[in-house]
Amino acid sequence: MQYMACMGDHPAIDEHVHSFQTSPDRYRHWKLRLDGEVARLSMDVQEEEGLRKDYQLKLNSYDLGVDVELADAVLRLRFEHPEVRAVVITSLKDRIFCAGANIFMLGTSSHPFKVNFCKFTNETRLGIEDASQHSGMKFVAALNGTASGGGYELALACDEILLIDDGSSAVSLPEVPLLGVLPGTGGLTRVVDKRKVRRDLADFFSTVAEGVKGRRAVEWRLVDQAVPKSKFEQVVSDRAKALAARSDRPKGERGMPLLPVEPSIDGPSFTYRFLRMKLNPQLRTAELWLKGPDAAAPASPAQLLEQGSDAWVVRAFRELDDALLRLRMNHLDTGTVVLRTEGDPARVLEHDRFVASHREHWLVREVLALQKRVLKRLDLTSKTLFAFVEPGSCFAGSLLELVLAADRSYMLDDPKRPTAVQLGPLNDGLLPMSNGLSRLQTRLLAEPQRVKEIVSRQGPFGPEEALAAGLCTFTPDDLDWDDELRIALEERASLSPDALTGMENNLRFAGPETLETKIFGRLSAWQNWIFQRPNAVGERGALTLYGQAGQRPHFDVRRT
Amino acid sequence: MQYMACMGDHPAIDEHVHSFQTSPDRYRHWKLRLDGEVARLSMDVQEEEGLRKDYQLKLNSYDLGVDVELADAVLRLRFEHPEVRAVVITSLKDRIFCAGANIFMLGTSSHPFKVNFCKFTNETRLGIEDASQHSGMKFVAALNGTASGGGYELALACDEILLIDDGSSAVSLPEVPLLGVLPGTGGLTRVVDKRKVRRDLADFFSTVAEGVKGRRAVEWRLVDQAVPKSKFEQVVSDRAKALAARSDRPKGERGMPLLPVEPSIDGPSFTYRFLRMKLNPQLRTAELWLKGPDAAAPASPAQLLEQGSDAWVVRAFRELDDALLRLRMNHLDTGTVVLRTEGDPARVLEHDRFVASHREHWLVREVLALQKRVLKRLDLTSKTLFAFVEPGSCFAGSLLELVLAADRSYMLDDPKRPTAVQLGPLNDGLLPMSNGLSRLQTRLLAEPQRVKEIVSRQGPFGPEEALAAGLCTFTPDDLDWDDELRIALEERASLSPDALTGMENNLRFAGPETLETKIFGRLSAWQNWIFQRPNAVGERGALTLYGQAGQRPHFDVRRT
Repeated sequence: MQYMACMGDHPAIDEHVHSFQTSPDRYRHWKLRLDGEVARLSMDVQEEEGLRKDYQLKLNSYDLGVDVELADAVLRLRFEHPEVRAVVITSLKDRIFCAGANIFMLGTSSHPFKVNFCKFTNETRLGIEDASQHSGMKFVAALNGTASGGGYELALACDEILLIDDGSSAVSLPEVPLLGVLPGTGGLTRVVDKRKVRRDLADFFSTVAEGVKGRRAVEWRLVDQAVPKSKFEQVVSDRAKALAARSDRPKGERGMPLLPVEPSIDGPSFTYRFLRMKLNPQLRTAELWLKGPDAAAPASPAQLLEQGSDAWVVRAFRELDDALLRLRMNHLDTGTVVLRTEGDPARVLEHDRFVASHREHWLVREVLALQKRVLKRLDLTSKTLFAFVEPGSCFAGSLLELVLAADRSYMLDDPKRPTAVQLGPLNDGLLPMSNGLSRLQTRLLAEPQRVKEIVSRQGPFGPEEALAAGLCTFTPDDLDWDDELRIALEERASLSPDALTGMENNLRFAGPETLETKIFGRLSAWQNWIFQRPNAVGERGALTLYGQAGQRPHFDVRRT
Repeated sequence: MQYMACMGDHPAIDEHVHSFQTSPDRYRHWKLRLDGEVARLSMDVQEEEGLRKDYQLKLNSYDLGVDVELADAVLRLRFEHPEVRAVVITSLKDRIFCAGANIFMLGTSSHPFKVNFCKFTNETRLGIEDASQHSGMKFVAALNGTASGGGYELALACDEILLIDDGSSAVSLPEVPLLGVLPGTGGLTRVVDKRKVRRDLADFFSTVAEGVKGRRAVEWRLVDQAVPKSKFEQVVSDRAKALAARSDRPKGERGMPLLPVEPSIDGPSFTYRFLRMKLNPQLRTAELWLKGPDAAAPASPAQLLEQGSDAWVVRAFRELDDALLRLRMNHLDTGTVVLRTEGDPARVLEHDRFVASHREHWLVREVLALQKRVLKRLDLTSKTLFAFVEPGSCFAGSLLELVLAADRSYMLDDPKRPTAVQLGPLNDGLLPMSNGLSRLQTRLLAEPQRVKEIVSRQGPFGPEEALAAGLCTFTPDDLDWDDELRIALEERASLSPDALTGMENNLRFAGPETLETKIFGRLSAWQNWIFQRPNAVGERGALTLYGQAGQRPHFDVRRT
C-alpha cells in the first residue's frame, strides 16, 4: 500500500515571543484579587488580545500570552504574598470557565511551536502543583461554567475542583473526538494517575465531546463537588478557607517584589545581569555564561529580603529561566546549548550554604523551589546541553547542577591552567529532577553508594578526580581542547534534530517515573506524534478542518 | 515560516505475514543446538530468505520472519526443554554478531508496519527477560563479532554480554548518527535503566556510529566482559555453566511439545480450536469469541503433560496470541476488537485453580507465564478493546482479565437472560500487567482496599453488583443493548485512529512505571514520532537516503 501524506497547505507559524516578563498591572487576561489568606485569580481572556491577530481568544480560550500571565501570577503569589495560603482559580465569563488552548492558534501554528507551547503550559501546571506541595499554597478550581480541554486540565492541576451544578456546565476533554489530537497539558495522565479515575470511565469521558457534568462527574472522581449555583460562591469560599487553614505559610511577613529580568539584546548577544548568551548560527549553538555571585551571601533571610529579587540566588536563576524560554520559543534552530560559568566557586558555595541552612524559612524555601524549577526547565529543554569546564569557571554546588544536567561535559586538563568542580549542600537531593532523584543519583544509578562518598567528600575535584568520580565526561588536554570541542559541536550539528530530541529525552531521565516524567516522557511523546500525523494536521485532518462548517475529516484508518 | 513535508515518493509497504507459527525444523535463520543444561541459539540469517524479496538480509540483519523464529525458539525452550538452564545467543557469521533490523526493509515499510514490527521485537526481548526472571533460564549474549543497533539491543535483553576483544568488534547503536531514528527495540532504556550506563557516556555511545569496543565497553558497563579471541569460546561456556548452576529448573523432566495453532481461514472468519474471530470491514471491528474449557481441568501437572499443548490452559491462550498478532500485522484497519466468551465459568475457574495451586511446578509455571504474556500482548495491542458480557459467556478468572483489559465493557442487565462475571485465584496478582500491578489494582487505583474486598468475595457478580464493584463500565438493559453497542462501535470508528492509539496508551497503564512500560510508553512513543518525521522518512530524510552513495540527508533543523 502506498502511503502518501502532504502537509503544509495551511500556514504554519513559528510565533516569536517578545518577552516572558509581565506583572499584574500589565495582565490583559487575568485579574488577581488579594483578600488576606485567600487570593482569587480570575480568567477574563480578551478576545482581541492574542499574541497574533489571526485568531480570536473566544470563550476564555488561551494562547501562550495568557499562560505567561498565569505563570507570572503563581510565581508572584509565592514570592510577593507570603500571606496567601489558598488560591481560587475561576473565570469572569458567564457559564464558561475556560475552553482550553485556542484551536485556531494551534491549527495555524508550526509543529515545533505547538510542542513548545504545550511544554510551557505543562510546566505552568506543574508549577501550581509544586506550590501546593512545597509552599503550602493550595489551589481551588472554581468552575463557574464549562471547563473543556486545557480548561479542565488547568482544574486538574488544582487541589480541589468544584463544578457548578447548573444543568449544563460540564468538564470535558474533547480533543480526541473533536480535533483528533490528545489533550496537550497532562490531562489523560492526571485523570488516571492523579485523580485515579477508573480507566474505562476515563476512556468514555475522553471520547465524548460534551463531557460529564453534575453528580456523574463527582461519582467518576472527575471533580470533587458539584455545587448548585445558589451555593457556589459560599462553598468555594468555605473550601478555600478550609485549605488555607492547613497551610504552613507565615503570617505577618513581608513579600519580595520580583523585578523584571529583561535582557538587553544586541544582534546575537543577550546580556542580563548574571547571564550572557550568544547565538552562533553557523554551529547552531547558544553559548551561555552564568556568572557566580559578586557579593557575599545574605547573612539572614531578613537580609535577603532587604536585597530583594536582584540577589544572586534569585536573579541568576530567573535569568537562566528567561534565557531558556527564549531559546525554546524564539530560537528553534539552535540545537546545542553550551553551558559555561565564570566566578568564584567559594562564593557560589557560600550562597548555597545560606539557602540550605535557611530552607525552612518561607522565602528561602521559595528561592530553593525556584532554583529547582529552573533546573528542571533546563532538563526538559529539547536542545543538546554541553557543559565546558574551563579555568575561571565556578561549577560548584547549585551551578555544578549545570554539568550534571548536561548531556556531556568537557573539562580542561591542563596543569598550567587548573580547573575544578565542587559539590555543596544543594547537590544531595535539594534540587531534584522530575524523576524525584538528584542529578547525581540519576547519573550514578549503578553505584548508589558512590553518591554518598562523593557528596561527603570536601573540597574541589580536579580533572582526573572528576573523571574518576564520574562528574565529567571527557578531560581533553590543552592541545586537544579546541579541536575536541569544535568537533563535538560540529558532529552534533550534523545529526537529525528530531532523533536527538528523542534520544536525549530517553537518556536524561533514568530511574523512577513520576507524574511529571509520565507527562513529559510518555504523554508528550504520544502527543507530539499525533500532532503531526496527517489525521490531525493533514489537509483533511481533524485539527485542520476544525470549525469549517460541513467539512468532515478524512482519516487514514490504519492503526499503529 | 511555512512548513512543508511530503512523504511517499518511495514505496511504503504493509507486509502481510502469512503465519506466526514455526518450529526448529523449519527455521531458516537460527540454529538451535541442545547440549544438556546449556542450549545454543545461533543466528545465521539467510540473505535471500527475507519475508519480502526487495531487500537482502546481509550481515545477520533481521526482518520480522527472523524474529518470529527467535520468539518461537525461546517459547519452545521454556515448554519443551525443561533441562535447559542457560541459553547462549550467538552468531554463525564471522566477525559479525548481528547488524540489527534490516534498514532497507525499514526504509520501504509503511509507518504502521514499522511500529508493529518494533512492538513485536520488543515483546520478544521482554520474553527473554521474562524467561530469565520467572523460569530460571539465563541468557548469555556471546558477541563473536560486532553487535550494532538491534543486534546490540538483543544482547541487552540477555543476562550477560560477552564481547570478543579482537581489536575491531564493537557494540553500537548507530540509529541516531546513521539513520536519524531511535534504536527501535528498547536500546536507550536498557542502556541507562537496566545496565545503568552513565547518561553522558550513553549520550556519546548513542551518537558514534562505530560504537565502543574492548576495555572501554566494559568500563562503561555496555558489556560485562571483553574476551580475547583465543579464550572466547571457553569463557562463554564457563559463564553459561555458571549461570546454569544458579537456575531452579528441574532435572530429569520431560517437556511439552508445542503443536501449531494455525487457524482455518474463510474470508473474514478465523477458526481455531478455542477461538473464533470475525472481521467486520464496515465497522472496522474484529469480533472474538473465546471458548471456555470443554473438559475437566487436569488432575495434576503430570496429567497436563499427558494432555499436551492442546490442553485449554495452553492452547486457548496461544490461539489468542496468534489472533492478536494477525490483527496487528495483517488487519491494520481493524480499529476495535470486541471480546466475547462462551462456556461454563465454573470450568474456567476450575482450570484457574489448577494453575494457581500448581504454579511452583515448572510446567505450570510456564503455563501461567504464557497466559500473563498473552494478556500483556492484549494490553499492548493498538486497537480499541471492548468486552461484551452476554448470556452464556464465561468471563471468570483468567477470562475476566479480558474485561479488565478492555477499554470499556458492556454487561447485559436483563433478569430474563442473566449475566455474571466472577473472580478467581488468578485475578489477585498472578497475571500482572506491564506496570507490575494486577488489572484489578490498576483499575481501582483510587481504592486499593476495595481490591481486597472484591477478590475475597466468593461467587458471581450480577450486572448491578459488577457495576457497583467497578468491574464493568455500563449495564444496558435488554431494550437498549443492541443500540448502545452499535452506537459505541460506530462512534469509535468515527474517531481518529492515531488519537485513539495515543489515548489508550495513556489511560491503560496508570500507576507505577517499569522497564516495560518505559519501553512501550515512553521510548516507543518517541520512536513513533521520529519514525514519521520528514527528517527520517521524508524524500531527503536520513532513513530514506541510507545506503545511497553521495546522498546526504537534509534536515529541518528546528528543535521540537
